Amino acid sequence: MHLPSYATAELITLALNEDIGRGDITTRATIALSSRGRAVITAKEPLVLCGVELIRYIYHRIDPAVKVVPARADGAALKKGDIIATVTGPCRALLTGERTVLNFLQRLSGVATITRRYVAALDKRSKTRIVDTRKTTPGWRTFEKYAVRIGGASNHRFALDDGILIKDNHIAAAGSIAAALKKARAAAHHLVRVEVETATLAEVKAALAARADIIMLDNMDQTTIRKAIALIGGRAVTELSGGVTLEKIPALSRLGADLISVGALTHSAPSVDINLTLTTGK
Amino acid sequence: MHLPSYATAELITLALNEDIGRGDITTRATIALSSRGRAVITAKEPLVLCGVELIRYIYHRIDPAVKVVPARADGAALKKGDIIATVTGPCRALLTGERTVLNFLQRLSGVATITRRYVAALDKRSKTRIVDTRKTTPGWRTFEKYAVRIGGASNHRFALDDGILIKDNHIAAAGSIAAALKKARAAAHHLVRVEVETATLAEVKAALAARADIIMLDNMDQTTIRKAIALIGGRAVTELSGGVTLEKIPALSRLGADLISVGALTHSAPSVDINLTLTTGK
Amino acid sequence: MHLPSYATAELITLALNEDIGRGDITTRATIALSSRGRAVITAKEPLVLCGVELIRYIYHRIDPAVKVVPARADGAALKKGDIIATVTGPCRALLTGERTVLNFLQRLSGVATITRRYVAALDKRSKTRIVDTRKTTPGWRTFEKYAVRIGGASNHRFALDDGILIKDNHIAAAGSIAAALKKARAAAHHLVRVEVETATLAEVKAALAARADIIMLDNMDQTTIRKAIALIGGRAVTELSGGVTLEKIPALSRLGADLISVGALTHSAPSVDINLTLTTGK
Amino acid sequence: MHLPSYATAELITLALNEDIGRGDITTRATIALSSRGRAVITAKEPLVLCGVELIRYIYHRIDPAVKVVPARADGAALKKGDIIATVTGPCRALLTGERTVLNFLQRLSGVATITRRYVAALDKRSKTRIVDTRKTTPGWRTFEKYAVRIGGASNHRFALDDGILIKDNHIAAAGSIAAALKKARAAAHHLVRVEVETATLAEVKAALAARADIIMLDNMDQTTIRKAIALIGGRAVTELSGGVTLEKIPALSRLGADLISVGALTHSAPSVDINLTLTTGK
Amino acid sequence: MHLPSYATAELITLALNEDIGRGDITTRATIALSSRGRAVITAKEPLVLCGVELIRYIYHRIDPAVKVVPARADGAALKKGDIIATVTGPCRALLTGERTVLNFLQRLSGVATITRRYVAALDKRSKTRIVDTRKTTPGWRTFEKYAVRIGGASNHRFALDDGILIKDNHIAAAGSIAAALKKARAAAHHLVRVEVETATLAEVKAALAARADIIMLDNMDQTTIRKAIALIGGRAVTELSGGVTLEKIPALSRLGADLISVGALTHSAPSVDINLTLTTGK
Amino acid sequence: MHLPSYATAELITLALNEDIGRGDITTRATIALSSRGRAVITAKEPLVLCGVELIRYIYHRIDPAVKVVPARADGAALKKGDIIATVTGPCRALLTGERTVLNFLQRLSGVATITRRYVAALDKRSKTRIVDTRKTTPGWRTFEKYAVRIGGASNHRFALDDGILIKDNHIAAAGSIAAALKKARAAAHHLVRVEVETATLAEVKAALAARADIIMLDNMDQTTIRKAIALIGGRAVTELSGGVTLEKIPALSRLGADLISVGALTHSAPSVDINLTLTTGK
Repeated sequence: MHLPSYATAELITLALNEDIGRGDITTRATIALSSRGRAVITAKEPLVLCGVELIRYIYHRIDPAVKVVPARADGAALKKGDIIATVTGPCRALLTGERTVLNFLQRLSGVATITRRYVAALDKRSKTRIVDTRKTTPGWRTFEKYAVRIGGASNHRFALDDGILIKDNHIAAAGSIAAALKKARAAAHHLVRVEVETATLAEVKAALAARADIIMLDNMDQTTIRKAIALIGGRAVTELSGGVTLEKIPALSRLGADLISVGALTHSAPSVDINLTLTTGK
Repeated sequence: MHLPSYATAELITLALNEDIGRGDITTRATIALSSRGRAVITAKEPLVLCGVELIRYIYHRIDPAVKVVPARADGAALKKGDIIATVTGPCRALLTGERTVLNFLQRLSGVATITRRYVAALDKRSKTRIVDTRKTTPGWRTFEKYAVRIGGASNHRFALDDGILIKDNHIAAAGSIAAALKKARAAAHHLVRVEVETATLAEVKAALAARADIIMLDNMDQTTIRKAIALIGGRAVTELSGGVTLEKIPALSRLGADLISVGALTHSAPSVDINLTLTTGK
Repeated sequence: MHLPSYATAELITLALNEDIGRGDITTRATIALSSRGRAVITAKEPLVLCGVELIRYIYHRIDPAVKVVPARADGAALKKGDIIATVTGPCRALLTGERTVLNFLQRLSGVATITRRYVAALDKRSKTRIVDTRKTTPGWRTFEKYAVRIGGASNHRFALDDGILIKDNHIAAAGSIAAALKKARAAAHHLVRVEVETATLAEVKAALAARADIIMLDNMDQTTIRKAIALIGGRAVTELSGGVTLEKIPALSRLGADLISVGALTHSAPSVDINLTLTTGK
Repeated sequence: MHLPSYATAELITLALNEDIGRGDITTRATIALSSRGRAVITAKEPLVLCGVELIRYIYHRIDPAVKVVPARADGAALKKGDIIATVTGPCRALLTGERTVLNFLQRLSGVATITRRYVAALDKRSKTRIVDTRKTTPGWRTFEKYAVRIGGASNHRFALDDGILIKDNHIAAAGSIAAALKKARAAAHHLVRVEVETATLAEVKAALAARADIIMLDNMDQTTIRKAIALIGGRAVTELSGGVTLEKIPALSRLGADLISVGALTHSAPSVDINLTLTTGK
Repeated sequence: MHLPSYATAELITLALNEDIGRGDITTRATIALSSRGRAVITAKEPLVLCGVELIRYIYHRIDPAVKVVPARADGAALKKGDIIATVTGPCRALLTGERTVLNFLQRLSGVATITRRYVAALDKRSKTRIVDTRKTTPGWRTFEKYAVRIGGASNHRFALDDGILIKDNHIAAAGSIAAALKKARAAAHHLVRVEVETATLAEVKAALAARADIIMLDNMDQTTIRKAIALIGGRAVTELSGGVTLEKIPALSRLGADLISVGALTHSAPSVDINLTLTTGK
Repeated sequence: MHLPSYATAELITLALNEDIGRGDITTRATIALSSRGRAVITAKEPLVLCGVELIRYIYHRIDPAVKVVPARADGAALKKGDIIATVTGPCRALLTGERTVLNFLQRLSGVATITRRYVAALDKRSKTRIVDTRKTTPGWRTFEKYAVRIGGASNHRFALDDGILIKDNHIAAAGSIAAALKKARAAAHHLVRVEVETATLAEVKAALAARADIIMLDNMDQTTIRKAIALIGGRAVTELSGGVTLEKIPALSRLGADLISVGALTHSAPSVDINLTLTTGK
């Protein structure tokens, strides 16, 4: 299991409450309680599939009598028309859960799909990796970070509590990059590395001198990035950040950085098109 | 108050738990507990503002000592550089809440901004209105539907329980449009109207004959739409749906329909850029 | 499934916590852990059954080893002594869950039973329907509105969000019935109808002129109701409201209104008598 | 504070979610956001007031800007027209919270009112007290048991965990009244008394012999009750139970029992009539 | 079932969220999704087992594919090396749940083990029982009170709501022991006994005169205890309390009191050592 | 604020529900609703204070009218008799909250106190630090890890998601230390270090060769530890683990390791003694 059920329960409850509420009045009026059927979930455009397990989790909450048989696994690259899963059971449940299931699949597959596009844009000879950010949809971080991994990129820190990233405000408060880093190391547990955000070569030098584990090169032009990476010379992991678009990935990935972080993977991924078609039993 | 606090509490709790978790280890290490500061939240690109009340709700949950003074109200059209709010209080709280506040504002303002663009694309002489769909981010429906209103469009039904929309599957199960509509009226409460989805002129005729209150013209080409609207002749509200993009809005809005529903308002709105800058007190 | 499990979980959790708390100390002391038994749930007076599915939901939360076999379905008219369900499993669980199960069944069947009495009191030639109100037990609306349907009446709007009902306070604030209706139509989504509460014939005229979809005749005497309905002449749905009792239903149902709303269905339905008898296994 | 806020939060959240949901669309359409007003909550019939604190709890959750000034305290006997509280603040909040506030007040005051009627029916020279049962509305036990106290009666045990009450099923499982009582005493903590349900004089004798602290005389006729009480002779507390109605209270209270338990206080109390009238500010 | 699943769900959810959070990154990296295995849970020191059911509850929340076969039941006295349970299923789930399962078992068995030591220290001819207190770990009362029973001691009242225990502050507020007891009896339900805390022989006399059901002798020396018990002469249950250690139990249990309450059973029980060893499948 | 209120709310709710439940029946009976008082919270033995903020959080949930004035801050070393805080307000609330407040303070201060004892036992010239483990009380990790910091030790990783710690089972599944480390680095985000558990010098060598960031020396005798640390020669952080007691700390801290991890800080810390004394107002 990729997304353990205890970790998805709360968002699924929110989603069911908001979409079904006091009941699906159209289905209740038009579909007999005894009606059984079979629904097929299909990709309507090319996409990287993500979230298949959720189909079962969601339907199980509506009616345990629904059976879900996935046709493909998370990470599969689907063509238009490819079947994702077949779902059988009471027609009322099949229709009532349709939109919630699709909303989850479309969004997660949307994140996985755009992520794979970014990964594919990396120069083939480059060792640079794409990573995500904390610019996720509130309530969705576990889900969206999972979709990023399915799309082939790597996760950056999950939250404020599992990695140290010293930004301008922290540096200003501590007095200097050196002071901030010293405080951070003293406070952090030993399994956590320390990253420092820099915007100029002078800051890169200060971060190096203070022995930062990772140096973020934030919003620098390509010339400055090149100089910074040369300066660092492998003594710290390097991360490019700020205003990254798909178009810039090939060039950026040739600069020799270890990581490029892309907020758009999660904050602006468009939904992909997936639908559900029902065949009512005799 | 636009979004009552009881209705936002659950998603905000999820969001704080996932972003802050066991604590912001960078801030705890580098910022003194006693440090006080002032943060300014600013638009980094033109946008329609949405979610200002949430700044206070979120910071209040982290530390009630934080004070929030909004500079603009929801619905304001901001230019790059316009100030959204000023926040003062303990620097630790200001920085720890930053990402959660921005993630909410960026997404909601993103929805409001793209919505206003769709509304602006309507032909000036047209009476057609833009409406949203149920293709929202799970857990976010109350928030996103609010952003749609702030953007100037109207809401479609909120959920499966507050409006009847008879689709192909319901018609198939009931036997015919007429049978489905009859059942729906018998079951629905008297404050609910009944909408029927149609894909052909024959279906439009059947829906008319069965006295549907609203007729959705789904995925029809413009010629067919024109014929359908002529056929309906004002006897039902008309809704255009399916594959609507911003580019098609001007033409579609000249066809005489009452409504155009646009899933992209909520399922694919890109985030807008907003940031927070901290000035540490002496 | 009539009441999906996700929608009942929260109230059932509250109910189990409050009735069982830290454990049933009597049963724990007097019944062996290994004891198995069979409990029969029986109507102790004539009633309309409602809530059968909850027996299983509740026992499942106490001990999944309990098996529930319903003898009758929701909506069945039972005589004194009719069996509702048979429940087998560990005796401790059977006894510990008894009161919670009965409290749900007795209340829901109470609502269904009184509702059916109101429906039966309608004049046979009348087309008038009985509807409920929002005067429900807080926390119980989904349950009680379901019991009303099982009893044979119809639901009014579920909540403040799925129907527009303009009352005196709204009219006063908007300035006039016409102004209130105009504002309501502009704000409401297209699947929602608009109802206006009226107390005099003058208000009925204003509501008609403003093209209200539904006109509520609130607390009018029968002579005035007759005049109002004649005045409306089928141009709006009509609802009688205020001080309705079972005794008045036959006369009210001969006045030609579409609906009579009855708060007492939910706010004052007496419980019906149901019991559980245990036979301990050898 | 009578009902601490932590203990009421969950049911109030359920109630607000179910009645307001995604927002009060009528009020939002017809009442300006800036409108301020004053609402008066008034008894529409004679009643024993209960639940005044909840007015503030509920409005605070909708909008902290609402101010509540109670006119009377819980337990007050009100005449028709007596003012219960005055509430001032944003008109939208006042109207949106109206039904939830009234549903709580009407139900709790309903329980307190009927309870006082039972208490008043006790023979003046009798020392018998009225007590409630566990036949409460699921989710409402803390609230309804409080209303019973406000009405002047006493509470029986709260739940399965704070008192031992040995019924027929327990006796059957344990083998005899003596065996059940012995087991119960061994298992119970020392602050808990043990009550035994009896239906015949033979059982009363067995309970006495086994030194039950309380003996319930269940569904006995008045002659048998008299004999049982004489038999017990003050050696145990006595409780009359089963089929108690208001009409029987005077006679039952002259039989010399300590307690009469009445399920109808909570399972069948009709709502009392309370309303809210708004005056919009200039 | 000893600990019903509805009563353990909330703490288990808290525990899983805090220990697993966004996922076990070590296991995800090093163990294949398809890997199956068998884990054995073993006592690493002599202990009284408690919490076996929780192994299944916890693993079920992580992955329903995990199967748990207990080898011993709660209450068993285990030697070092004794097997507690065997768990089979996906290796990822087995390892991810390990620490949460062990933390529950180690703590509960720790409480049961120390409890049994106190019970064993009672003089063999003494009728005195060991009872617990309300000095439990917040969030854990149901669990720890259960472990006390498994260890062979008895529970005192569970909480503030299921027993009356009048302490110095209550006496001071009421004016005297007699006044406090009189008020308590009037307010309490008839299944609840009344206990009074005393610190001197004068207070013991006052409590006796006021007919307290239980008299707590708080922090008295053994000579005073002896006098107090003689004075009481069986007319009330007696409880020794305050500064009780394992070493004092034999002597205290010879003084003739009914109960000795020991806070240390729950507030200071050391964990016992239990481990889990995994064998990966072929 | 050290422990943000959103992160403590859930455990405090659990704690209040379990200790107060349906209400403090002793206090309700004996203390007048209008009674006001002043309570002083005092150390009854030498201790390191931890959890002062919680006094206010807890009392605020019972009655917002209670005022808390702390006398000392978290981390203060108190002598017997030192005042921790003064609390004023309604006497009922003061007494009803007493036990919950004390249970939190006693446990957290217990962890801080024992932690400081371990830290004090480190050889003065040693650079070794004491760290905690994941052997915390389920539900309490945020609280107990905070108490460890207050006591002067450092935190190890918080959970399975914020640090990689490869144990024997992971090594067995991956095939070798080298293989496990390689997989871990590929999967982990760049801010996370990798630790490997070793039990022999051969494993230490393998871990060094695979460039582990941290090497845990698990359950080794002091001779082997010395050799292992010499072997590592500063090329990795070193952690001593397994069977650590307070008595061993001086010797262990002279071996030159960076860290000593101690499960007993959280899994076996005895409570410290703290009490609350009330003075009732006139």
